[in-house]
Amino acid sequence: MAVGNAPLPTLHPVPGLRLGTVAAGIRKAGEPDLVVIALDEGSRVAGVFTRNQFRAAPVRFAEAHLRDDAPRALMINTGNANAGTGPDGDRAVEGNCAQLASILDCRPTQVIPYSTGVIGEPLPAERIDAALPAAVDALSENGWAAAADGIRTTDTRAKGRSCRLELEAGPVTLTGIAKGSGMIRPDMATMLAYVATDADIDQPLLRRLLRDAVAVSFNRISVDGDTSTNDACALIATGASGIQLSAQADIRCFADALEALCIDLAREIVADGEGATRELAVQVTGARSVAEAEQVAFTVAESPLVKTALFAGDPNWGRILAAVGRAGIEDLEVDRVRIHIDGCPIVEAGGVSPDYRESIAAERMAADRVTFRIDLDRGRQAVTVWTCDFSYDYVRINAEYRS
Amino acid sequence: MAVGNAPLPTLHPVPGLRLGTVAAGIRKAGEPDLVVIALDEGSRVAGVFTRNQFRAAPVRFAEAHLRDDAPRALMINTGNANAGTGPDGDRAVEGNCAQLASILDCRPTQVIPYSTGVIGEPLPAERIDAALPAAVDALSENGWAAAADGIRTTDTRAKGRSCRLELEAGPVTLTGIAKGSGMIRPDMATMLAYVATDADIDQPLLRRLLRDAVAVSFNRISVDGDTSTNDACALIATGASGIQLSAQADIRCFADALEALCIDLAREIVADGEGATRELAVQVTGARSVAEAEQVAFTVAESPLVKTALFAGDPNWGRILAAVGRAGIEDLEVDRVRIHIDGCPIVEAGGVSPDYRESIAAERMAADRVTFRIDLDRGRQAVTVWTCDFSYDYVRINAEYRS
Repeated sequence: MAVGNAPLPTLHPVPGLRLGTVAAGIRKAGEPDLVVIALDEGSRVAGVFTRNQFRAAPVRFAEAHLRDDAPRALMINTGNANAGTGPDGDRAVEGNCAQLASILDCRPTQVIPYSTGVIGEPLPAERIDAALPAAVDALSENGWAAAADGIRTTDTRAKGRSCRLELEAGPVTLTGIAKGSGMIRPDMATMLAYVATDADIDQPLLRRLLRDAVAVSFNRISVDGDTSTNDACALIATGASGIQLSAQADIRCFADALEALCIDLAREIVADGEGATRELAVQVTGARSVAEAEQVAFTVAESPLVKTALFAGDPNWGRILAAVGRAGIEDLEVDRVRIHIDGCPIVEAGGVSPDYRESIAAERMAADRVTFRIDLDRGRQAVTVWTCDFSYDYVRINAEYRS
Repeated sequence: MAVGNAPLPTLHPVPGLRLGTVAAGIRKAGEPDLVVIALDEGSRVAGVFTRNQFRAAPVRFAEAHLRDDAPRALMINTGNANAGTGPDGDRAVEGNCAQLASILDCRPTQVIPYSTGVIGEPLPAERIDAALPAAVDALSENGWAAAADGIRTTDTRAKGRSCRLELEAGPVTLTGIAKGSGMIRPDMATMLAYVATDADIDQPLLRRLLRDAVAVSFNRISVDGDTSTNDACALIATGASGIQLSAQADIRCFADALEALCIDLAREIVADGEGATRELAVQVTGARSVAEAEQVAFTVAESPLVKTALFAGDPNWGRILAAVGRAGIEDLEVDRVRIHIDGCPIVEAGGVSPDYRESIAAERMAADRVTFRIDLDRGRQAVTVWTCDFSYDYVRINAEYRS
């Protein structure tokens, strides 16, 4: 299940970058599960990774390779996370990186590996080795849609966004894909997301742009509160357009577009959350700090009782209020807290609002996309966190995932 | 649904205390939903309450009355939490306390009120007033079983425990009842629990005994991570036996019995958790502090992915490992972490144990009661937290609760 109907939009090619997707037999026979992204020389890549302390083997190698060498390729498999696999898992990644490097005629440390899928099963490294030549043969600037499809696990649909920007320095392209549906509570980045541009961006700026965009997009979503061992997000700048990102106005324009694109991708993940039938935006305003606002927003967004009420389309605001109350905010003056559901006043002065109308609230709560606004009325900070409801299908998907 | 089959055991009367239970029409027509517990003069009561900052009206009054006066009665209704009800909610509690006080010929501040049920709907105070005389007429030392039934909300069964202790000073009785099935992540006490003894215990000792017992029982369970607005636990000492609790050996004996009784009641709540089909004990050992051990144990116990795997009886240890990794423990050396499922080795050295046998692990994971042992191997502290699985029925119950 998924919220709404979201066909993959047109994904513009990004000069300097080609993608090849094949079926390597890792996930299900005949389904695409291996993606290679080849980068022209001179490309730069910034990466953010999970903060889960059990980090998958590819996460550790990807970080080291990004730090130590100039990347020429990203290698992504789905169906197996290569996490909790011990020294064998490390050897599997090293072997696959070496194999792709030999085909592309680069160093193994120029290959950035990513895996997603079941934790704790040995990576079928030989199948990946065997399929890499075909993936390289398939490389194409027009390979974005196939790659968006090839990185899916329990995702019901491919996720991508793309735009063209007219900077003062000239036109550039920004295209991204993402996957993720369960074990989604990124603590750095969502499961996997790749965003690329043909702008020429120096490494410190690239890192900063990525960090800022991730903070308000992939780090503000939660499907089930579970942070994956493999979360990763990469921002690639091929520089192939020859357009340098350096003027302040251009940087601001690019940063805004990148942020919007990452938020769109993050919301796509939530809307396609496991078993999701509704998307929920939890906006917390009037907080003393961003951390405080996030704490309240995530407590509400991750409450199983709030999420099952959302599934039922039931404006059970008592559960929202209870979640706000247990979010651990010091000295919260509960009488000042105001809660709205899509503009409909629900809670004020410690109880139900005099303007509350159950029939209107129920109508709002039963929409495809629902927004809670929670005003703490004690400061000026605000954040929005996105999540989805908790349905029978969430249980079914996660009780059956390995069978 | 509930784990196993647990008929209510014999609940010994506690001299000095009588209970009366009636149907006041608050919850469902004809079902018991109002309990009065009358205490002989000289009884002492210690109470702990929710730390949720949205505290129900009865919680605020119960705390104040316990602080300011000598309690003579507890008044408990189910079906309505009287939370998020503003000034009207306060007036409702005051009125009901005054009504019961006039029947029992005591002061309103000698009545300790408790409510549990739906949040945010006005308390039908007049129905409670109307039913209080019948509840007082029903008062009996043998009223424990009826009271255990009368405080239920979504609980599928009544919960109680009872024992007799031979102290050096003489024999005393200890009997307790509890309710709770959803919105269970007590941050002080479970939804509602009442434990009574006829021992004579002074107020500071009574408070300490309650606090210590709650810390390792009701504060170590979670059904869904949601802390209620109404959680409360009371320990009553009527003193009617004339047996004073003062010798160190007696205090230790009583404290152990109280702790065991509270753990049994807490586990009963988890085993009867909404939609529960299995009970899970998460034992964390080798932690540097109790707080650290609790943090890991609760992160695992509240992971929706762990809980759905438990529902499936699937030893998907990757999800356990991922939860340990995101628990936020500084400098966790993941290679030292060892995980067992009921004695079956699962994880060591950052990956699957060489002694892991899927068939054995699957058999253990499919039992009614499952234990995970997670050894962090970095200290000497250990805790156990209890929870239950996450099933279709959890979603059904919570999506339909108000309908």
